[in-house]
Amino acid sequence: MSQKTMLLSATLSNGYGVQGQAWRAPENHRSNFTDIDAQVKLAQAAERGKFAFLFAPDFPGAGEELASQAPVSTLDPIVTLSVLAHQTTRVGFIATGSTTFNEAYNLARQFKALDVLSRGRVGWNAVTTSAPNAVANYGERVRPREQRYERAHEMIQIVQALWGSWGEDAWVHDVETGQFLDMDQIQPINLGGKHVASRGPLAIPPSEQGQPVIASAGGGEYGLGLAGRYASVAVGSSTYDFDVTRREREMYRSAVRQAGREADELKYFTGFMPVMGATVEEAIGKRMQMDEHLAPQRVPVLGLMLGLSLDASQADEPLSAAQLERARANPNDPRSARALEIARQGWTPREILAHGVIDYAPSPVGPPEAIADYLQEAFEAGIADGFWLQQATYAVADEFVDEVVPILQRRGLYHRDYRGATLREHLGVPRQYGQDPRLN
Amino acid sequence: MSQKTMLLSATLSNGYGVQGQAWRAPENHRSNFTDIDAQVKLAQAAERGKFAFLFAPDFPGAGEELASQAPVSTLDPIVTLSVLAHQTTRVGFIATGSTTFNEAYNLARQFKALDVLSRGRVGWNAVTTSAPNAVANYGERVRPREQRYERAHEMIQIVQALWGSWGEDAWVHDVETGQFLDMDQIQPINLGGKHVASRGPLAIPPSEQGQPVIASAGGGEYGLGLAGRYASVAVGSSTYDFDVTRREREMYRSAVRQAGREADELKYFTGFMPVMGATVEEAIGKRMQMDEHLAPQRVPVLGLMLGLSLDASQADEPLSAAQLERARANPNDPRSARALEIARQGWTPREILAHGVIDYAPSPVGPPEAIADYLQEAFEAGIADGFWLQQATYAVADEFVDEVVPILQRRGLYHRDYRGATLREHLGVPRQYGQDPRLN
Repeated sequence: MSQKTMLLSATLSNGYGVQGQAWRAPENHRSNFTDIDAQVKLAQAAERGKFAFLFAPDFPGAGEELASQAPVSTLDPIVTLSVLAHQTTRVGFIATGSTTFNEAYNLARQFKALDVLSRGRVGWNAVTTSAPNAVANYGERVRPREQRYERAHEMIQIVQALWGSWGEDAWVHDVETGQFLDMDQIQPINLGGKHVASRGPLAIPPSEQGQPVIASAGGGEYGLGLAGRYASVAVGSSTYDFDVTRREREMYRSAVRQAGREADELKYFTGFMPVMGATVEEAIGKRMQMDEHLAPQRVPVLGLMLGLSLDASQADEPLSAAQLERARANPNDPRSARALEIARQGWTPREILAHGVIDYAPSPVGPPEAIADYLQEAFEAGIADGFWLQQATYAVADEFVDEVVPILQRRGLYHRDYRGATLREHLGVPRQYGQDPRLN
Repeated sequence: MSQKTMLLSATLSNGYGVQGQAWRAPENHRSNFTDIDAQVKLAQAAERGKFAFLFAPDFPGAGEELASQAPVSTLDPIVTLSVLAHQTTRVGFIATGSTTFNEAYNLARQFKALDVLSRGRVGWNAVTTSAPNAVANYGERVRPREQRYERAHEMIQIVQALWGSWGEDAWVHDVETGQFLDMDQIQPINLGGKHVASRGPLAIPPSEQGQPVIASAGGGEYGLGLAGRYASVAVGSSTYDFDVTRREREMYRSAVRQAGREADELKYFTGFMPVMGATVEEAIGKRMQMDEHLAPQRVPVLGLMLGLSLDASQADEPLSAAQLERARANPNDPRSARALEIARQGWTPREILAHGVIDYAPSPVGPPEAIADYLQEAFEAGIADGFWLQQATYAVADEFVDEVVPILQRRGLYHRDYRGATLREHLGVPRQYGQDPRLN
């Protein structure tokens, strides 16, 4: 590993949590979606836990899922993070922004303004947009991947050039002589590609970290190419299989080296979704309560994962010896082996599901020590530089910070305080201003 | 007049003030441009003064003027106003946003998120962008006025339709039944014009005022057409000539009626730029200090206004009897008559300039009573529904609120408290959600 202690981050979403039914959890007020105080409380928890950043996924669209689920994103990432940046002093923020459906100048301006407001604690998760119900909101059709990534490269290069267009020492503001700026250091960028163009300059001075960090969550060949060139943070896949995750981290590091940078200039994060309680029984009990209405439709999915035909009527009966005999883990789905392992412990399908076996990320289950054990094992296996907490409900962030973080600190796996003041310092990545001169 | 008391607003700009040299004023810290606290202090002053709103002009570009002047705008209006909305409870905010260089969906989302965050205190000043050094930042060429306004109409209609696409009672969030939204009330808008299109819906519920107010600062035939159809606030010209301003107000009211709305649904604001001090001498003394480096280049301009040839060497000598004899006010420039009137009082050119005679807006000069007298006279002459304070430096806002507002209140010209909680209530304009059904 390139460092001795792990990094941590958490999810900024809709004020409830990443689980689709989180808005129904008793600890959430049902109006948290529009209540900035819920977001402020999360940011303060992350800061108390010395997290490197809150990560705000974003999806500029909505579909039929809203009949029963809250939108996955905050009302708007820039609006929300502006308030959170003002209400905190140390934790970083990475906001998702589309490279497909933004004007480069507007995006550059908002992210740099936010970086200045936060005194250097901001990152931009640069993603292409291809989901049809997002694309339609911009009156467009889905573009081929190659075109989307061509535009994404242009966007990042032009945005970074705009960020660097106000020279680091340009702001003379000499009251005596009346010179506000040294105009020799305020230069147009005059960049134009096939999809994006801007003249500049952008009239915003450097932040304490120079300019925002770039993050990437794309994956695939094109995504690796993008991350390799520009990203300081990669938010990778989240699987139960340490080998899969470790290989992905290596692919990112190799892409970074191919672009002429040092591998450690990118920090790889993988997700986890703890199910916490004083005991395993209490943890899955809480989770079953929240998933009560989801379980019936999920039992058949669990059946498929185990190679069995299961329906909702069997939700509360442990699998029979005959069923366990027939059950097979799907080798192409790393969640399957874990589901089978838990089934063999004698849990009912509803209880197996409450272990989080079909969720988006690995779900360690149980008391704080069990969660810490999982992170220690994963970190020592070298699967990631940092772990991204996907809290089923926002309350899990507080529980995690207050109960798991101290264990990680006692074990020497996690820092007791921030080493610096900026997101770049939290991550241990180099300062950058304007475009990276090593790229061409 | 349509109401018995006047409305007030002030300018949110760069943290220093609207005067180009304000960054050099001793009461400004030189880093106010990047210090959100300077903006928070202004918002708190406006709220203490029961102002209807802070008005944030915006210009997405920069030029050679930055050698000696601060950028006119805040770092970014959405970022700044998000913090100010969170730090206040009553004052409204109107942010400028380009109809030419924004995606309709992104703009609709950010303004509605800000409106929800502020609990219904936000307006959008919808302007077209034509300045070459702004247009170039978007890799474009300047479009003809007709095309720009065609796009502006489409933008406003589509943005308002997106705002209305989450029905007012759609948010069921019933924990028992698990229904988050009533999907019958969440409808795509499927609007597309020649320039802008969006499918929607936008997943943001109504604010306390429904949706943001539209403001217009365009002027001209096209601008009047836009304001007449959509605007609740018009920020008009600022001249010394009451007749000119009153006629402009009438033109706006007539445009509103032509669009099928009631004239009082639009409030007309005109600017003023007070020069305050315990006496006239102290007021212009403070102003001369700030304008010290500007005066030499402005003396010849003053000469042109008076029909005289003046140069910087004459800055500190009162005009001679012969000069006063020859001086003529330019009938096409309402500032000229006032400059001549002040010259005849025996002031030097530098002192005449310190009366604000060539500034952007009428400049009443002197103690608080003199400023209140000007506003009373202007309001009773029926020139405007509200007055827009263009504070030379941010400190003027505090002085105005603490010294002039109480006089206006004692005279019964200004409210002692807000009548409601939302910007629409402050303005006395009707609620609107989605597009105005009276328009077609």
